[in-house]
Amino acid sequence: MAENGTDQQINLAVVAGDGIGTEVVEQGLKVLDAVLAPSGTKVGTTEFDLGARRWHATGDTLTDEDLGRIKQHDAILLGAIGDPTVPSGVLERGLLLKLRFTLDHYVNLRPSKLFPGVRSPLAEPGEVDFVVVREGTEGPYTGNGGALRVGTPAEIATEVSVNTAFGVERVVRDAFARAAKRERKHLTLVHKHNVLVHAGHLWRRTVEAVNAEFPDVTTDYLHVDAATIFLTTNPSRFDVIVTDNLFGDILTDQAAAITGGIGLAASANINPDRTAPSMFEPVHGSAPDIAGTGKADPTATILSVGLLLDHLGRAEESAAVQAAVSADLVERATTSSVRTTAQIGADIAARVAG
Amino acid sequence: MAENGTDQQINLAVVAGDGIGTEVVEQGLKVLDAVLAPSGTKVGTTEFDLGARRWHATGDTLTDEDLGRIKQHDAILLGAIGDPTVPSGVLERGLLLKLRFTLDHYVNLRPSKLFPGVRSPLAEPGEVDFVVVREGTEGPYTGNGGALRVGTPAEIATEVSVNTAFGVERVVRDAFARAAKRERKHLTLVHKHNVLVHAGHLWRRTVEAVNAEFPDVTTDYLHVDAATIFLTTNPSRFDVIVTDNLFGDILTDQAAAITGGIGLAASANINPDRTAPSMFEPVHGSAPDIAGTGKADPTATILSVGLLLDHLGRAEESAAVQAAVSADLVERATTSSVRTTAQIGADIAARVAG
Ligand SMILES: CC(C)[C@H](C(=O)O)[C@@H](O)C(=O)O
Ligand SMILES: CC(C)[C@H](C(=O)O)[C@@H](O)C(=O)O
Repeated sequence: MAENGTDQQINLAVVAGDGIGTEVVEQGLKVLDAVLAPSGTKVGTTEFDLGARRWHATGDTLTDEDLGRIKQHDAILLGAIGDPTVPSGVLERGLLLKLRFTLDHYVNLRPSKLFPGVRSPLAEPGEVDFVVVREGTEGPYTGNGGALRVGTPAEIATEVSVNTAFGVERVVRDAFARAAKRERKHLTLVHKHNVLVHAGHLWRRTVEAVNAEFPDVTTDYLHVDAATIFLTTNPSRFDVIVTDNLFGDILTDQAAAITGGIGLAASANINPDRTAPSMFEPVHGSAPDIAGTGKADPTATILSVGLLLDHLGRAEESAAVQAAVSADLVERATTSSVRTTAQIGADIAARVAG
Repeated sequence: MAENGTDQQINLAVVAGDGIGTEVVEQGLKVLDAVLAPSGTKVGTTEFDLGARRWHATGDTLTDEDLGRIKQHDAILLGAIGDPTVPSGVLERGLLLKLRFTLDHYVNLRPSKLFPGVRSPLAEPGEVDFVVVREGTEGPYTGNGGALRVGTPAEIATEVSVNTAFGVERVVRDAFARAAKRERKHLTLVHKHNVLVHAGHLWRRTVEAVNAEFPDVTTDYLHVDAATIFLTTNPSRFDVIVTDNLFGDILTDQAAAITGGIGLAASANINPDRTAPSMFEPVHGSAPDIAGTGKADPTATILSVGLLLDHLGRAEESAAVQAAVSADLVERATTSSVRTTAQIGADIAARVAG
């Protein structure tokens, strides 16, 4: 696996997926090529035909063979998964979550930054620059639940949130390490330990214990309901948030909304132990309603490419992508012209190249 | 049990609880007395000493005897439960949730209205006037979970979300009935059925089935993460939301934030079958940091009293309370004077009396 800045080739598994996935991924790759060109590093891509089309054609979501081949890559770039023609859950659980779980992406990293020039729906957002470390392999996402007597008046359906010391500790440690590297060095645990007492107390005790390893990081705690309030009234207070899989899902969409929308929200599904490739994807979904119209905003994918570069030890190129996006966003604020998906990609690619 | 507008006495169980609970409940009762005075209806109150003080003194959270006595009342007015000196979960699960569960408060009703004169943290909130029907007796709130090997590296903690056709259908039917009575007649189901497939599909099928009984109600569906986005970017789209216990907890705090804060957010824990008294409480917590300072805003409690009146068949008095609050909020917007908890209560009481 290529894991530092000296490799001359980055081998990417590309899962464009459904809806706008193809369009945004294309722009992400365009920017990646452009930012790496000066260093002579080449990007090799293997496209994986996964998602609604494949499922309709073959019934497969993600085979062992797919997984085996994906694992041979340095990283995965994913567009979007999900289509209304496929029963809900089939692709999400059989493909997207299967990738996250099988490749042990236990750190689901979602930065939220209000870039200059970007209008927040909040009247007074202040400076917003935090990152959510969402647990990626446990919680209510394990598929650990079931149903009895489905379709009868006696139906019962359960969903089990599974939390282990092993799983919680490793993600909490990662979050502390990220907080320790930031200026404010502050970590907020979000949970609901007054109701979900077993899981919540495990999270709380773990944060207290791991704090000893990072004595310069300050911590606080918010119930998930209160967190949604502060994301509305005072998002500046957040630096690093660590939380479980489901709460992280909810909070990061809200966080995306207050920082200009999911068109700008990047994410990284990281395997910090590097036992398998990490995966980079925009937070937005497949948006079938605008697929093919050229209206999709590729910025979230491009920022995800920035996270990919950072993960591969290419901090400089990562910063260049982020700077190019930032400059592009400032320009967007001052012009009224509407660009297509491809134009936005080309403009940002031109910036990183120049 | 008194359940219509003709009773000459309303017997209230009053659980002031912790922190600011006492202060806000006092104002709620002040307004209740004032609005009922013209009709000659008296309010009889029984105070229940429940919460942190009682627990510290006796170790009790809510005894069978307490419950038996509470059940003899027409309704319950609750201030706030929770204190940092009590281990997290003890009072929430042993008292607040025990009341909701034992008294079968399966409809947790939380209206969100942006009153004229109230500043939303959203730059362009539009007209916001929706109600969340949160399921109150199932989901991840059942206390159905546990932990093994606590405090060891092999610890595992689970939380089980329990959903039954019985429980989902009755709250969905209630939500449809409420939607049918509103102008827009629109119901949004919020869940996460692409991940929580068993519970999510039960909810979805139930909404589809019950829709047949309410053919003039239109419906749509949002994943909970997407719902937090629309609450930020377009809250006007919502009319009635029906959702599970945990999603409802999260969304209603966010909804409170966009409509001026939890100082204004009322709630009703309703037993629609009237087999036990319903309970009315502000959404905010005990706020121990401002307890005793006179800074607590009693408006949410007063609006909860409005919901109480409505539940007891006192539609006119309920509307009067809502109108008085609305007028008070308009006045707040135009004056800079800061009033105490008691002054706000007295001012609103004067309005309903006049
Ligand atoms: C599509 C869905 C399974 C996914 C999730 O819930 O994690 C998405 O909402 C996300 O946040 O990446
Ligand atoms: C205090 C807590 C148990 C409660 C809940 O989670 O329901 C509160 O947040 C609420 O919304 O009424």
